[in-house]
Amino acid sequence: VTEPAESPSRRALPQVVLVVGTGLVGTSLGLGLRRIGVDVLLSDPSSGAQALACDLGAGRPLADPDGASAHGGAARPDLVVVAAPPDVVAAVVRAQLLKWPDAAVTDVASVKSGPLAELRTAGADLGRYVGGHPLAGRERSGGVAARADLFVGRPWVLTPTVESRPAAVSTVRAMARAVGATVSVMDAEAHDEAVAAVSHVPQVAASLVAARLRHLPQAAVALAGQGIRDVTRIAASDPGLWTQILAGNAGSVGRTLHALRDDLDAVIAAVDTLVEQRTGSTGGTDAGQAARAAVTDLVAAGNEGRSRIPGKHGSAPTRYVSVVVLVPDRPGELARLLGDVGGAGVNIEDLRMEHSEGRPMGLAAVDVVPGSADPLAGALRSRGWIVHA
Amino acid sequence: VTEPAESPSRRALPQVVLVVGTGLVGTSLGLGLRRIGVDVLLSDPSSGAQALACDLGAGRPLADPDGASAHGGAARPDLVVVAAPPDVVAAVVRAQLLKWPDAAVTDVASVKSGPLAELRTAGADLGRYVGGHPLAGRERSGGVAARADLFVGRPWVLTPTVESRPAAVSTVRAMARAVGATVSVMDAEAHDEAVAAVSHVPQVAASLVAARLRHLPQAAVALAGQGIRDVTRIAASDPGLWTQILAGNAGSVGRTLHALRDDLDAVIAAVDTLVEQRTGSTGGTDAGQAARAAVTDLVAAGNEGRSRIPGKHGSAPTRYVSVVVLVPDRPGELARLLGDVGGAGVNIEDLRMEHSEGRPMGLAAVDVVPGSADPLAGALRSRGWIVHA
Repeated sequence: VTEPAESPSRRALPQVVLVVGTGLVGTSLGLGLRRIGVDVLLSDPSSGAQALACDLGAGRPLADPDGASAHGGAARPDLVVVAAPPDVVAAVVRAQLLKWPDAAVTDVASVKSGPLAELRTAGADLGRYVGGHPLAGRERSGGVAARADLFVGRPWVLTPTVESRPAAVSTVRAMARAVGATVSVMDAEAHDEAVAAVSHVPQVAASLVAARLRHLPQAAVALAGQGIRDVTRIAASDPGLWTQILAGNAGSVGRTLHALRDDLDAVIAAVDTLVEQRTGSTGGTDAGQAARAAVTDLVAAGNEGRSRIPGKHGSAPTRYVSVVVLVPDRPGELARLLGDVGGAGVNIEDLRMEHSEGRPMGLAAVDVVPGSADPLAGALRSRGWIVHA
Repeated sequence: VTEPAESPSRRALPQVVLVVGTGLVGTSLGLGLRRIGVDVLLSDPSSGAQALACDLGAGRPLADPDGASAHGGAARPDLVVVAAPPDVVAAVVRAQLLKWPDAAVTDVASVKSGPLAELRTAGADLGRYVGGHPLAGRERSGGVAARADLFVGRPWVLTPTVESRPAAVSTVRAMARAVGATVSVMDAEAHDEAVAAVSHVPQVAASLVAARLRHLPQAAVALAGQGIRDVTRIAASDPGLWTQILAGNAGSVGRTLHALRDDLDAVIAAVDTLVEQRTGSTGGTDAGQAARAAVTDLVAAGNEGRSRIPGKHGSAPTRYVSVVVLVPDRPGELARLLGDVGGAGVNIEDLRMEHSEGRPMGLAAVDVVPGSADPLAGALRSRGWIVHA
């Protein structure tokens, strides 16, 4: 997705980027930009967080308010990226616009219309501001979890306005592409409607399901399996942060929740009908069949919606191919296999094991770059391994 | 959790078990029982599914309707386990009770009150029937996905009635414990109320969220991340099977859905209030603060409910310890590491890699039995590896 080096967006790549906020996203962005030679300045209200990001190689500290660096070089950013919590984003963006009158400024907040309205009301210079939202994250947070490849293959939405100058949009787009993201452009309202459906309402649903567990007998909670664990994983999220996000996107979240409640009402009516049928109080076979059909329709509608989600896990596109090998479950066998892989001159990108206690063999899935799969499979077979490639 | 060999439940272990239905659960049960020397007979309406289960080592075919085996041995089951789809469970259990007048009969269906009522209405011999529900599953289905350890550390609920003879309950309990499950006893209604909250309503919620994606612009769906993927993973489930399950447990599912809708109504009211506040049409600061508090309350309630789910992933209790080693990202280094592990005489139970493109090192997490972790870490350090154990 990254454009060739000679493209206009590559030429628009900023020379000096200031990242304000060195959590997971800010530090990952610094790592990604340093890899391609961009000069990255880092700033965080927490000096510990800022020092960690510098030690990890994400950039150098913004030394003083004038932007002169610790190394004495010129350090006026072409682009400022605000990676601050949602409730302070508009204020920090406005301050950075005032502080760096020649720089473009973007942010990475998950709600876009509200901060934009705040900036407009405050009379900020919207010509140099381009809202942004990289949809990238990890289970872990903070700079220590940062990865240079966090944005590779991930969406990065830009929400420019009619005021945005083309040069500012090009600079932000070039930066996002340079770290491997897939850039798309929406207006702020379309963005907020989209994230209501794919992020904010799923959060509410997870919380609603998890809340039902509060007063359940312990013996009942003990029956929880993988299904509810997946459905409620994000229910462990921070209430303060999510109040900011849901309140910040109340209009779109409300519309989607109303539509979801209509579907829920239909299912509840169907289930109530099935109960009445069983107890013989009302209805006949037709009502029962209609109720069953309503339940089937919802699950089928869920199938249809689920099938629209692209890819298998939403991570970066698969760049590797698995070579699957049967491995006897004895000490030394896995090492012998890995030795034979090394002997074939192939680098292992990833390796997963699947054991079954009831079977004498395990399976090792060895991930390699696509061009290495066939030669590796051949080399392993010639040494007696049973290989599925 | 499995009792010592001399305990009454061990003495109650059946000598011959007939498994009717050789899908994932039936075949896994056969594998688990064969490992401890139980004679397992297998029967499935699909001859291909039955043959696969036999080839996998889950048991031998039930040769003819009188139960004489292909090997000529006596083959009257002490226990019959019905592992059939939910809508036919009661009929198959009743048929097996009639066919084997001396055997105890159990089933593995996920709804218990309805089939019990059907059996009672049909005048089945409830003294020999003990309902059961192992809460175990995998992403994949069918005998080919079967594992002898599928039930290890997983809950297995028994729902005996006042009619159930103690010997029948002991036999079923002993069988479930013998394959490693944690047995609990509930009445059928308590079981159905529990699975409504931990399994059936999560399924409805996943379908409701996924259904919102149907008519979303493709550019919006493209923003889907890991959160909604987890929330909607089970939305890909089979509509026919889930109509059977939800209709079969309509009473408990309805009660839980009504309670969930009450919480949803509160959130919708709060979000609507926040929208009205922003557009200035109604309300003051107090109303806005109350609305924000209502949103915070729901997410906090979800935190509380989520925190009640035991364990991290709901899989079997962790039996291994990770030894984490820094591995230079060069061909041959992982093989050298594995060779050194083998040289230390330690068997690798599992191995996971974590790479970061922006770093010159990867991390290898080597899982070993607890007693091997410290000696392994010492051996690897003495050979120059950087180890976190």
